[in-house]
Amino acid sequence: MVTVSTRGASLPASPIRKLKPFADEAMAKGKSIYYLNIGQPDIETPVNMLNVLKKLENKVIPYGPSQGLPEYQDALIKYYNRHNINLTRDQIIVTNGGSEAILMALTVCMDPGDEVIIPEPFYANYNGFAVASGVVIKPLTTVLENNWKLPSIEEFEKQITSKTKAIMICNPNNPTGKLYGKEDLLKIAEIAKKHNLFLLSDEVYREFIYGDEKYTSLINFEGMQDRVIILDSISKRFSACGSRIGAFVSKDPAIMQAALCYAQARLCAPTIDQLMAIPSVELNECYFEETLGEYQKRRDVVVEALSDMEGVDFKTPDGAFYIIISLPVKDAEHFVKWLLVDFDINGETVMLAPANGFYSTPGLGENQVRIAFVLNEEKTKRAMNILKEGLDEYRKINM
Amino acid sequence: MVTVSTRGASLPASPIRKLKPFADEAMAKGKSIYYLNIGQPDIETPVNMLNVLKKLENKVIPYGPSQGLPEYQDALIKYYNRHNINLTRDQIIVTNGGSEAILMALTVCMDPGDEVIIPEPFYANYNGFAVASGVVIKPLTTVLENNWKLPSIEEFEKQITSKTKAIMICNPNNPTGKLYGKEDLLKIAEIAKKHNLFLLSDEVYREFIYGDEKYTSLINFEGMQDRVIILDSISKRFSACGSRIGAFVSKDPAIMQAALCYAQARLCAPTIDQLMAIPSVELNECYFEETLGEYQKRRDVVVEALSDMEGVDFKTPDGAFYIIISLPVKDAEHFVKWLLVDFDINGETVMLAPANGFYSTPGLGENQVRIAFVLNEEKTKRAMNILKEGLDEYRKINM
Repeated sequence: MVTVSTRGASLPASPIRKLKPFADEAMAKGKSIYYLNIGQPDIETPVNMLNVLKKLENKVIPYGPSQGLPEYQDALIKYYNRHNINLTRDQIIVTNGGSEAILMALTVCMDPGDEVIIPEPFYANYNGFAVASGVVIKPLTTVLENNWKLPSIEEFEKQITSKTKAIMICNPNNPTGKLYGKEDLLKIAEIAKKHNLFLLSDEVYREFIYGDEKYTSLINFEGMQDRVIILDSISKRFSACGSRIGAFVSKDPAIMQAALCYAQARLCAPTIDQLMAIPSVELNECYFEETLGEYQKRRDVVVEALSDMEGVDFKTPDGAFYIIISLPVKDAEHFVKWLLVDFDINGETVMLAPANGFYSTPGLGENQVRIAFVLNEEKTKRAMNILKEGLDEYRKINM
Repeated sequence: MVTVSTRGASLPASPIRKLKPFADEAMAKGKSIYYLNIGQPDIETPVNMLNVLKKLENKVIPYGPSQGLPEYQDALIKYYNRHNINLTRDQIIVTNGGSEAILMALTVCMDPGDEVIIPEPFYANYNGFAVASGVVIKPLTTVLENNWKLPSIEEFEKQITSKTKAIMICNPNNPTGKLYGKEDLLKIAEIAKKHNLFLLSDEVYREFIYGDEKYTSLINFEGMQDRVIILDSISKRFSACGSRIGAFVSKDPAIMQAALCYAQARLCAPTIDQLMAIPSVELNECYFEETLGEYQKRRDVVVEALSDMEGVDFKTPDGAFYIIISLPVKDAEHFVKWLLVDFDINGETVMLAPANGFYSTPGLGENQVRIAFVLNEEKTKRAMNILKEGLDEYRKINM
């Protein structure tokens, strides 16, 4: 019998999706589930994007250029320009979601066995892409108690070896909701310069910042232009997760040349979805303010509800739409399953993501879960109530 | 300065797409170009697929399940059933085009440094995916003079080392148009069994067979169920190249488990494009007969025109919609560029794909090009006339 490769066997199941069979089972038994495990917002995709489909007159759905439809590249140039990121077409490759941009970056920057430093907890799917590309993640632990603050330069440098090729951050952060400010970014830029590392900058939550701090991209720091790759996506920005339209952005010609070869191998990103993304550039400040206001309300509901739960610890997120909380249970994954299988209030329950899959260091995050505040206020309130009641009952049984 | 990885620097430019800048330059000067370099058919995408877009009532474009929308998986089950391939949902993962299925297969079956045997010339983008995944392609040369016949079992076995994990074929073949019959497949199955290898079976041209031979999939041969992976796509079948909807199919649970983990990391294939693909299953025998008839006419035009060109050698394709021809020139790539830059008939010229990029062995295919017969009869006739006249003029200048 043939056996799958070592890396094939090492590919982790997504902590966000692996408990879906338990959810399906619960649904089959008639339960309703509030899905706070996955970053799938219930915000509507903008009408001007959806209208593209109605008006489409194509008789053939053809390949587009490997780097993306020029019209969509131009829309992206306008969009980034508003964020003080000045680009030309040859500095942008449209990708199959932010996901492909991540895999592309790991492949283009690193060879099998090379290392990338990532503050943990981190977006769980980085693990899958690292295994697939043979790249080794060296995690740098950040902790809830210290408000997920980045470690010191010395701590970063302890992780650096001759194999280290890059630092990767997600800012604002999924899964912690932490926003790294200018001081943090300067620190990372300094380390990257000193040790000649790539900086992979996952900025898909750029617009989701709840405080007064303005967003700055690593690409705008001095001396960073030849080492930063922005990994981006319209999934969350325009609530179009299923469109699978992302972007790989760099100002370094050698990086873009290698990325273009990768892009040519897989031909192109989906044509219709790119066409749909073009008018997104017309969405103005009002759209983003309204959306942000909506997420802020949800965040506030979550934070208020959590404050009222005994033994639950957390820090209020500054950005993105996630929060990692620590629970007064030993095994958060067991609790998440229990909520799906054995608990409900009037036929309703809630699904969360066990946080251990967001850590690379074994044993961390075992009593934590990630909550995505992607449902409207009313639903979020009900979901949080289920969590509170569930937690009380679970502790009675399991303590 | 940071430098891209060894594999990043080794990623080959697509031989199908790398001369596009010369085509763009010619277009900018007002020339019209017949694109016979790329498998982008002018056949219309079926109306029942396009109509899905008009009728779409989604207010949100959400993620789908990582393995694909269940409704589309069910459509695929029906489709494969007609080809005597009986599947269940958990034996199918919907991918971002056939491209992703290829990369997924290489990753799941092989570790960096492992080897896959592929008869050459082969679909050029296998090269890019092999470099990206660290897999080594061991080519097994087939030659025009012998009608692209598969080498003997002995020749195959000469390529097998302790690192060999798989054989990969494309049948009917891109770029040669060769159809491997039952005898060929039995040979491959025998070798795979004897040496315990995976069989990666690229079957995207399944319906495009011009003779009387019926298509058989490797998955239906005895003892092959636990080692065959079908790599598939709707791009050519339904002229929907820009939809980026492919499939990864296997009956082996361990393969599917690893592939599902890979699929979870990149979340899902595009939702709208999957919805659009669902009614493709309703297209009946008439659709395929009509489409095949159209391609057969085009093939016949190409073959007739080529027969009339001095010094041009070729074999009539049995399947797919490509042909590799050898030209009476030293450097086919130079000739292809010359056609774009320096030649036209009444402002029209033709673009071909230099064939050297379809070989892995250095030096092979230098005087060959691939022609994709993807344009209607009239356009194909004109394009072939441009090729003939161009060839005559080029030989006058370069001999």
